[in-house]
Amino acid sequence: MSALGEHADVVSLVDHHVHGCWLDTADRAHFENALNEANTEPLASFDSGFDTQLGFAVRAHCAPVLGLERHAGADAYWQTRSGLDEIELAQRFLGAAHVSDWLVDTGFADGVAGLDELAGLGAGRVREVVRLEAVAEEAAAATGEYAAAFDEILWRRGRSAVGTKSVLAYRGGFVGDLSEPTADEVAVAAARWRDAGGTRLLDRVLLRFGLHRALRLGKPLQFHVGFGDRDCDLHAANPLHLLDFLRVSGETPVMLLHCYPYEREAGYLAQAFNNVYVDGGLSINYLGARSAPFIARLLEMAPFRKILYSSDGFGPAELHFLGARLWRNGIAAALQRFVDAGDWSEPDAIRVVDLIAHVNARRVYGLD
Amino acid sequence: MSALGEHADVVSLVDHHVHGCWLDTADRAHFENALNEANTEPLASFDSGFDTQLGFAVRAHCAPVLGLERHAGADAYWQTRSGLDEIELAQRFLGAAHVSDWLVDTGFADGVAGLDELAGLGAGRVREVVRLEAVAEEAAAATGEYAAAFDEILWRRGRSAVGTKSVLAYRGGFVGDLSEPTADEVAVAAARWRDAGGTRLLDRVLLRFGLHRALRLGKPLQFHVGFGDRDCDLHAANPLHLLDFLRVSGETPVMLLHCYPYEREAGYLAQAFNNVYVDGGLSINYLGARSAPFIARLLEMAPFRKILYSSDGFGPAELHFLGARLWRNGIAAALQRFVDAGDWSEPDAIRVVDLIAHVNARRVYGLD
Amino acid sequence: MSALGEHADVVSLVDHHVHGCWLDTADRAHFENALNEANTEPLASFDSGFDTQLGFAVRAHCAPVLGLERHAGADAYWQTRSGLDEIELAQRFLGAAHVSDWLVDTGFADGVAGLDELAGLGAGRVREVVRLEAVAEEAAAATGEYAAAFDEILWRRGRSAVGTKSVLAYRGGFVGDLSEPTADEVAVAAARWRDAGGTRLLDRVLLRFGLHRALRLGKPLQFHVGFGDRDCDLHAANPLHLLDFLRVSGETPVMLLHCYPYEREAGYLAQAFNNVYVDGGLSINYLGARSAPFIARLLEMAPFRKILYSSDGFGPAELHFLGARLWRNGIAAALQRFVDAGDWSEPDAIRVVDLIAHVNARRVYGLD
Repeated sequence: MSALGEHADVVSLVDHHVHGCWLDTADRAHFENALNEANTEPLASFDSGFDTQLGFAVRAHCAPVLGLERHAGADAYWQTRSGLDEIELAQRFLGAAHVSDWLVDTGFADGVAGLDELAGLGAGRVREVVRLEAVAEEAAAATGEYAAAFDEILWRRGRSAVGTKSVLAYRGGFVGDLSEPTADEVAVAAARWRDAGGTRLLDRVLLRFGLHRALRLGKPLQFHVGFGDRDCDLHAANPLHLLDFLRVSGETPVMLLHCYPYEREAGYLAQAFNNVYVDGGLSINYLGARSAPFIARLLEMAPFRKILYSSDGFGPAELHFLGARLWRNGIAAALQRFVDAGDWSEPDAIRVVDLIAHVNARRVYGLD
Repeated sequence: MSALGEHADVVSLVDHHVHGCWLDTADRAHFENALNEANTEPLASFDSGFDTQLGFAVRAHCAPVLGLERHAGADAYWQTRSGLDEIELAQRFLGAAHVSDWLVDTGFADGVAGLDELAGLGAGRVREVVRLEAVAEEAAAATGEYAAAFDEILWRRGRSAVGTKSVLAYRGGFVGDLSEPTADEVAVAAARWRDAGGTRLLDRVLLRFGLHRALRLGKPLQFHVGFGDRDCDLHAANPLHLLDFLRVSGETPVMLLHCYPYEREAGYLAQAFNNVYVDGGLSINYLGARSAPFIARLLEMAPFRKILYSSDGFGPAELHFLGARLWRNGIAAALQRFVDAGDWSEPDAIRVVDLIAHVNARRVYGLD
Repeated sequence: MSALGEHADVVSLVDHHVHGCWLDTADRAHFENALNEANTEPLASFDSGFDTQLGFAVRAHCAPVLGLERHAGADAYWQTRSGLDEIELAQRFLGAAHVSDWLVDTGFADGVAGLDELAGLGAGRVREVVRLEAVAEEAAAATGEYAAAFDEILWRRGRSAVGTKSVLAYRGGFVGDLSEPTADEVAVAAARWRDAGGTRLLDRVLLRFGLHRALRLGKPLQFHVGFGDRDCDLHAANPLHLLDFLRVSGETPVMLLHCYPYEREAGYLAQAFNNVYVDGGLSINYLGARSAPFIARLLEMAPFRKILYSSDGFGPAELHFLGARLWRNGIAAALQRFVDAGDWSEPDAIRVVDLIAHVNARRVYGLD
């Protein structure tokens, strides 16, 4: 193995966007469904979550962590996995990821570990990323003026958090006006939403309000971009529709997550705006053996100080580990080609690995 | 050659979307124009259909079938081809494709073999795929209520057919409302269309009606997606515009054909919906030496039980063979990389070749 | 090195879209900012233009032209560069590009060499490409009827020019009506624009008028497509939005420049229309070590007689050389794969290098 490959294999990571892992035992159907991100229904009876790039990657890379042979069969994998305690699984997989800092989006946490539980696994420091739409839903339930309640909650939670997160992609997408609404518009929209129950925020005025308050907070603002489940109109989650928003976003870092199949568009935005960053997030796990070319495309237009690592792991602890494993393999494969072609020096390649693995994240989230 | 390569070389194929081949001799201009899909005019005098990826692929892979050397010159190729009887050519090329079942879209058949003629070539079983827009045009010409006529024709022709096909991409594209129209809306639209002559269906109400009747029929419904000729607005044939339709499509299999340059979006939809499938169809022939990376991209988000093979061959029998030849080479090249990188085992790769080559098609079309 | 690689290394190029290079010394901040295309603000203090694909490519490929080692550090590179006269730099880099003909877009020339100055560098013949929006702005400033003034300027300047260029991508993009306006519409729009000062043309009527006059002139009409700075809405510069325009564009060659990330869509258009051509332009420099896969994608749907070379160099003379250097490496790498896979013969590959390097450009621009 080259010095580059060895370095990528062991470099410490900041996982700047992740969720909790399971702490309770799941059944096989639940596990296989957790290997499909896009579908919102149970997998068809003729299908298997194992017969996907992600499923093959689990069998290739996670099986050895459980003491199985690489490419263990699906049944053998499941038999071994289901014989282990979920917390034991979590400790093994999160520990094997070699992540120093987990920046945890707590906006969706049904059935997965909370911040303290994650910290208790002893697999790295844990910091929070606050979901803006959750703040809005808290503010809807609070008494008094909506905008003031939103601000109070955001500033209070933001004190200990390292950043904010928006799932605008799932709440109508990026197309249309994303300018800051007036105080009057916010008050009217909030009253209407509260009257309607104040659940699952879809009101564009209040979504826009939240984004602009997050800009004002100044901590990195993460956007779910592209690949996700089918509740999202994928084409409305093309980050180019954020252009007008980015043009007025000032200096607050904006982090474009996942990005598939718009990773080249996202990289362009990272070049176009001093405050825009990209990562491959969720997409890397789902691409499995095809993640290396994706990681290479992330290294096209995006400046190297503007690219980060995340796993977006949620649920099976395999995902928290596998994201790291695939990224290590993929970045090494991508950069080795550049070195072999004489386009990059190996020391430069190793330096870029460090930038993406942790240096950029430490700088932009102020982790030290 | 690896076991994987040997397997891909000989595995039996179901070509689940194809048209007839020529049975009458063509002249050289006709042949060269048939190597360009997108243009609707004769090639410019400075151009040649041979100076394309498809043209180079014909010279590389079809020349040996005619006893010529690989990479034979365009003139030599044409001289040999034009000296052979078109039926002899069809038998050689279709036979060399090693296809067990040809599922034939009969909606556009000017100058090419019909179902019986294809079956008569002795190169595999032949089954029909019914074009919905042709059913509509038959119904317009029938007497009595349009909707009843449409249903009668669709159910009658559907009895012996294995599926249906829509060229909505060429009739205004996928953008806009694709919900089921009411009976009244259908009656009004049908009356208007019949008054106007009832040719070349472009009416959105009746196009939507046809799609929803095909869903009700329950046999796989094929959509032309992406790459085709310039009568189609390529961006309006992005399969993401089918999202709302797919959300209400129930359990009827929906087959996304060709898909270039939206193959990643199509693969996403195959993950997102239990009833959605993808193939590379027409694109593989036109990509020639670049088809392997395309085939690899089809293996990103799409579950492996949701990917099929087709050639979309139309006209020169070369296309019926070449689709198979390029797919065999491309899938072997793509999967060999996964095996060489340690991401997949070779037995898994061989199994996935079988799934795409015929297992998935046999299951979804109920061929056995 | 293979015969193919050796040929690509030395083949003479026509750079069919380029700008002037600097003749005056720049400071380091100016130089680093010139390595970022998309941003319109100064680079952030934490960033460096050297930590990008382009920056790494400058250190890999331009450093040896200055007598430095490949991969020289950024500081060493800058030190050596800043110790040389800008004209000396221009002569070295332009000379090392081995370009026989530079077709120069003179529409934006702040701080860079004009046609005579470029010719004076002795690095190849220099011909003009006339910017349509600059013609419009001249016509606005002229006396008399706008349309007549536009025609007079376009025909006069067009006599010695080899083509025209539109930056419609920066003036509202390609979406919407691009049909020819009536004489009355032009007169009304011109009066309104002149009243408003007649600067920076954004009026759609007058933009459309200019395009259709360029079609009538009949010389190749270049379009900025895709990748550029953030003043352009990247998604509105998708060349598929030109479909209706292309359908009425007749026989005047239309050249789609840069095209990232829409190079596959552009290649499709080059297949669909006898008069459409593509190149990778600006994108190749910015992709650096990732330019080979991009060049390969340009070789998908586009017929080989419809692909050209350009650098789009502007400012640092490195870009005029590097575009050529990266294209030589990238085309050789892409085609070598085709040869190694048995899909292309080496003589065919060498012939395609010639087509793209200069044969197609000589034919379409009538250079001989």
